[in-house]
Amino acid sequence: MANKSQSNLGVEYVLVYRFATTDRTQAENRFEELIHRLASVGLATEVRNGDNHSLLVFCRVASEKHMYGEVYRSRVKDWTHGVRSAEPSRDVQQTLEQDPMVESERLRIIYQLITNPESVGGAGITPKKGEWENVESLFALHDHVYNKEWIKKWSTQWLLTPEDLDDIRNRLGEKIGFYFAFTQSYFTFLIFPAAFGFLAWAFLGYFSSIYAVLCSLWCVVFTEYWKHQEHDLALRWGVRGVSSIEAPRHEFKPAKEVTDPITGEKQATFPAVERLQRQLLQVPFTIAAVLMLGTMITTCFGIEVFISEIYSGPMKSVLVFLPTVLLTTGLPLLTGILTTFATKLTDYENYETESQYERALTRKIFVLNFITSYMPVFLTAFIYVPFGSLIVPYLDVFSLAVKPFAENEKQMKAPSLPSQFTINPARLRKQVIYFTVTAQIVNFAMEVIVPYAKRQGFIKIKEMQSARAQKAGGVAPSAAAEDVPEEKEFLARVRSEASLDVYNVYDDLREMVVQYGYLALFSVIWPLVPVSFLINNWVELRADAIKICVEMQRPTPWRADTIGPWLDALSFQSWLGSITMSALVYLFSNDGIGPDGNPSDIKGWGLLLSIFFSEHLYLLARWAIALAISKIDSPGRQRSRRERYLTRQKLFDESLDQTHRIPPMAEKGGQITRSSLEEEARSISLNTASPEERFWNRQRTWRESAQIGTGYIDRALPEEKEVMAEKKEL
Amino acid sequence: MANKSQSNLGVEYVLVYRFATTDRTQAENRFEELIHRLASVGLATEVRNGDNHSLLVFCRVASEKHMYGEVYRSRVKDWTHGVRSAEPSRDVQQTLEQDPMVESERLRIIYQLITNPESVGGAGITPKKGEWENVESLFALHDHVYNKEWIKKWSTQWLLTPEDLDDIRNRLGEKIGFYFAFTQSYFTFLIFPAAFGFLAWAFLGYFSSIYAVLCSLWCVVFTEYWKHQEHDLALRWGVRGVSSIEAPRHEFKPAKEVTDPITGEKQATFPAVERLQRQLLQVPFTIAAVLMLGTMITTCFGIEVFISEIYSGPMKSVLVFLPTVLLTTGLPLLTGILTTFATKLTDYENYETESQYERALTRKIFVLNFITSYMPVFLTAFIYVPFGSLIVPYLDVFSLAVKPFAENEKQMKAPSLPSQFTINPARLRKQVIYFTVTAQIVNFAMEVIVPYAKRQGFIKIKEMQSARAQKAGGVAPSAAAEDVPEEKEFLARVRSEASLDVYNVYDDLREMVVQYGYLALFSVIWPLVPVSFLINNWVELRADAIKICVEMQRPTPWRADTIGPWLDALSFQSWLGSITMSALVYLFSNDGIGPDGNPSDIKGWGLLLSIFFSEHLYLLARWAIALAISKIDSPGRQRSRRERYLTRQKLFDESLDQTHRIPPMAEKGGQITRSSLEEEARSISLNTASPEERFWNRQRTWRESAQIGTGYIDRALPEEKEVMAEKKEL
Repeated sequence: MANKSQSNLGVEYVLVYRFATTDRTQAENRFEELIHRLASVGLATEVRNGDNHSLLVFCRVASEKHMYGEVYRSRVKDWTHGVRSAEPSRDVQQTLEQDPMVESERLRIIYQLITNPESVGGAGITPKKGEWENVESLFALHDHVYNKEWIKKWSTQWLLTPEDLDDIRNRLGEKIGFYFAFTQSYFTFLIFPAAFGFLAWAFLGYFSSIYAVLCSLWCVVFTEYWKHQEHDLALRWGVRGVSSIEAPRHEFKPAKEVTDPITGEKQATFPAVERLQRQLLQVPFTIAAVLMLGTMITTCFGIEVFISEIYSGPMKSVLVFLPTVLLTTGLPLLTGILTTFATKLTDYENYETESQYERALTRKIFVLNFITSYMPVFLTAFIYVPFGSLIVPYLDVFSLAVKPFAENEKQMKAPSLPSQFTINPARLRKQVIYFTVTAQIVNFAMEVIVPYAKRQGFIKIKEMQSARAQKAGGVAPSAAAEDVPEEKEFLARVRSEASLDVYNVYDDLREMVVQYGYLALFSVIWPLVPVSFLINNWVELRADAIKICVEMQRPTPWRADTIGPWLDALSFQSWLGSITMSALVYLFSNDGIGPDGNPSDIKGWGLLLSIFFSEHLYLLARWAIALAISKIDSPGRQRSRRERYLTRQKLFDESLDQTHRIPPMAEKGGQITRSSLEEEARSISLNTASPEERFWNRQRTWRESAQIGTGYIDRALPEEKEVMAEKKEL
Repeated sequence: MANKSQSNLGVEYVLVYRFATTDRTQAENRFEELIHRLASVGLATEVRNGDNHSLLVFCRVASEKHMYGEVYRSRVKDWTHGVRSAEPSRDVQQTLEQDPMVESERLRIIYQLITNPESVGGAGITPKKGEWENVESLFALHDHVYNKEWIKKWSTQWLLTPEDLDDIRNRLGEKIGFYFAFTQSYFTFLIFPAAFGFLAWAFLGYFSSIYAVLCSLWCVVFTEYWKHQEHDLALRWGVRGVSSIEAPRHEFKPAKEVTDPITGEKQATFPAVERLQRQLLQVPFTIAAVLMLGTMITTCFGIEVFISEIYSGPMKSVLVFLPTVLLTTGLPLLTGILTTFATKLTDYENYETESQYERALTRKIFVLNFITSYMPVFLTAFIYVPFGSLIVPYLDVFSLAVKPFAENEKQMKAPSLPSQFTINPARLRKQVIYFTVTAQIVNFAMEVIVPYAKRQGFIKIKEMQSARAQKAGGVAPSAAAEDVPEEKEFLARVRSEASLDVYNVYDDLREMVVQYGYLALFSVIWPLVPVSFLINNWVELRADAIKICVEMQRPTPWRADTIGPWLDALSFQSWLGSITMSALVYLFSNDGIGPDGNPSDIKGWGLLLSIFFSEHLYLLARWAIALAISKIDSPGRQRSRRERYLTRQKLFDESLDQTHRIPPMAEKGGQITRSSLEEEARSISLNTASPEERFWNRQRTWRESAQIGTGYIDRALPEEKEVMAEKKEL
């Protein structure tokens, strides 16, 4: 009966109500209000005990008919806003038969039913916010049977099919569907750079200009093709333009409420100018972030170079790790502070919808990520290697860091003659390998294995604690004590799921985009980068699936029609790549680096000229490729066109009922009967006043016009011949 | 009775049927067919004699009701395709009352009635094309009363109001409306650069970097703001997205006709891949054009420099004009050939709609214009001045051109010492002044005054000819001979209008865009450029109005939602401007030019670096400005939003009739009565089989859930207090 124990008993959402820090009466009143509100929107509820002063409220829709009504309403709204191309059939049953409701649609609508404000027909329960602070979380239960199958299927499958993606969308919603679709598309595309990267590595060596060109072109094709694919998926999933019908954020604070005099629609607005002013704060924020993170990274970089290249005293092998330790402790701390600040700033910018908010926050986070991820490589490539011999001698400012360990001053001094000091050219490659292989593996471990181990540890500790408590006859009975035996297993599972983290798909997307950045910006340094990513992403896709199933609460199936702000990040990195790649190739290619490790014979104008050409060729290629790709048709586009056509036809026919009542013109103008002619003649003789009427009645039918016209031709053409004859005589 | 003589007697379109080169029987048959076809679509016709073996066919819609039907149909089509935001009222009369038909709408629909294929309900008469080669032209008659008022009004008015633009749109259609709106907007915007250009000229001198930055920013703001305005106008005029419902071009040759199995719509298609292949021919075409025009311009430039700077023999003052003569004869010839070739190429590319065709042709023409307009200045600025002293000595290849005039070899040799030869730095400024002042005036004369004089001359000649013919009792009687006296004046006017040229609004737009190019690319050389343009454009706007009224047939009122391809040209020039301006400032600013006329101390990397910064700052500014402008609301946008809202509301209400039949949920879940409870209890006892049902029936109403939940809280919270008390004790 494995199946039975894994069933969710028809539960659609679980609400965790925590009352540990609340006054008892208030907790009870709010709880009653909560249950009442849920019932008022048609949800049946069951309450059970939760862990540590919490209650579990189970909800499901009491009547399927009611559910159908909600789905239908939502679809009609989609259609009137142009999100769905086809008008839903006027018959509810028929609509649902033609286009069955999928799990994600159902869960989304129920979620909205619970969280939407009462004014638009929801229960107005906003977890963790405002008056509903006690509602700790609201989540659907994992479908364990499906999850097992899912993971099993994926781990034995080399490529994901479109149906797999549809399946994810049906279960987890379009937003997560887009993440998997993107990663899958990226993975498939990686096969090309992996192939020519491997060939370049084997035959062309590092800093190959051929590889750089191919890689840049690949970046363009990939980004543009993904845009195309994204559009197609949005049409296929019926979510194109869905951001336009988003409900306002709960936290949005309108400056004023305007009632439109014509539509009567109440609009809570916030002036764009004021928001723009607030957004300008991003400029100092960005500068501060660049300075702070930059200083930290540059300092650690300097110390590292100093210790590894100059310092010759004792403990060198240990001291070399000092900057790494500084970075790995300081950077997350600093990033954390800056992220908090970015969030505050975004809150202050007061966006109207969740997706605008996310977009603004993502942009700021991207800046932070960009600095921490790529700055070390930038420093090595464009500061350390070209100017190393000039800068390194000044690095003894960092001698402070090792002073306690040095035995004498000499150990902390650079060799006095610059020519004696040698740049370490392998440093750049080592760094890139670190970021694209080692860091990816470490990251994977941090993301999947560590949380898993942590959880297992937690469970162990809890078991031990409760065992000890039971031995001691402790005061706090387990929440499970009152469970009915047949529900025991189910409730244990729910309590465990309630303690899980909330999945944020943007974290995973960010990881992919940062990874793509290494490829676009620096892969010419070590052409095996795409090979490493290809392998990594095969695992990543599966690991993410496992993560969602095992380590996270089931995500609410939000809709989206794009991977959002990350798309801009992709384009930006591809563009920047056209600059860095050409610069790297110019600086390091062939025998760029002389025997002394210094790049030999480098001209400023040569570098700038190659950047100039590379960038503009990139822009030209992007334009051409985008144009070519835009011509490609796709199943989603075809379907949407067809649906629009049919809907249009229907509306057109309905509207044109009217004009059928007007007699078609041909009868009046074209078909002439004796009586009509006579009638016309009479009407003319009755009122011949205006010159206009006289003009139009000289030829009363089209036949008369034709006769008179041919008459003119008759008279003109013979003359023509005479004239020509005359001319010939001359 | 001036009014009467200027009336058009209700004539809506005039067809000129020319039969001079056709066999008589055939001419008569086709003419009969023509009249028949016109009648079959509900047009009344009158035939009169035309000039030189032609007939004038006058058309008007026979029944206003029929006209209403056509207008209504067209509006419904617009609405279903999303061009109009509001659904036309289901009642035809009401629609026309709410939103009266304007002249341009009426004329457009009649034109389509005449020219559309019979399959879509038109008469299928395509002037000058295929079987209707005899139909020489098809045009509406000028409204002379209105035209007079129009010109009078504009010539006494400093600025055009939005109502003036609406008026043009109502008379001449949206496409021409957009031209005037654009020129007006450009003219208004020019006030800013004219002001700071004048100040820069007075206080900062030439090549001021401040002027360059301001001018570039102005370019961005202007282009972005125009996009915004264009969008607003398109909404205001109800033509947004109108290109999507364009009928196919008559010349479009589909490769295959596909019947869509689902929609049943016949689609004549041409594979995109094949078109892309054909479009690739543009690459050799562009290269060839650049080479041919470039060679010609460079050669003439070389000869000119040679004669003016090196040659010292006789006739110098005359010979100096040799290259100008060569250019003014050769360039139009060459451009003509290339334009013909571009047209052929565009024909070959086989576009489906007229606007795609126009866009493709415009792009090619723009390339030609770009070379002929800007290359001379480019040559002077970036070749002659910086490298002059290196190149000029080699110019004696051009000595051939003056050999016949030179008295000795010495007169054709550059001074042997390069230091003796001096660059003429004023040449650049002179050239810019020539292009932005002299050429504009010449152009104006060529456009307005010359054709007017030509026409007056023609009329004179004709009068003299007919007078002589009458004296001689000649065989060819004037076409007017048979005119009824009261129509004489009217027919003479029609015959004269029939002989006029067809107006092409893109020619005028091109002129504006080329002018804008000088401003964006080179105005830093001579900051009075915008002042000159400001004056010029005030006149230009009025001159164009006169041109349309007097020198051209009344244009068919086409629709458009943009100035089309020229918008891309504007953006491109602004972008390029960020490069040329920074390069010019770097090369020439301050004391860039040394006493010997050579730019002193110019570094390649410095030039490239300033270009690099300037271009990227430009792109950043463009992004920021576009973002800021996109936040601006406008009346058109507001109206459209309102209309969409109302239409949506209506459709939503209609669709939701259905769901009202479903009982609202609240009754079932929320309001609990004794009987419903009993019923529930009964149904549970009937089938208690599944664990799911048992789970959901433990708490049968929301009150039970609430009670049990508060019970849990009751039990948990006292404990909590005890625990806290315990903790305090510790």
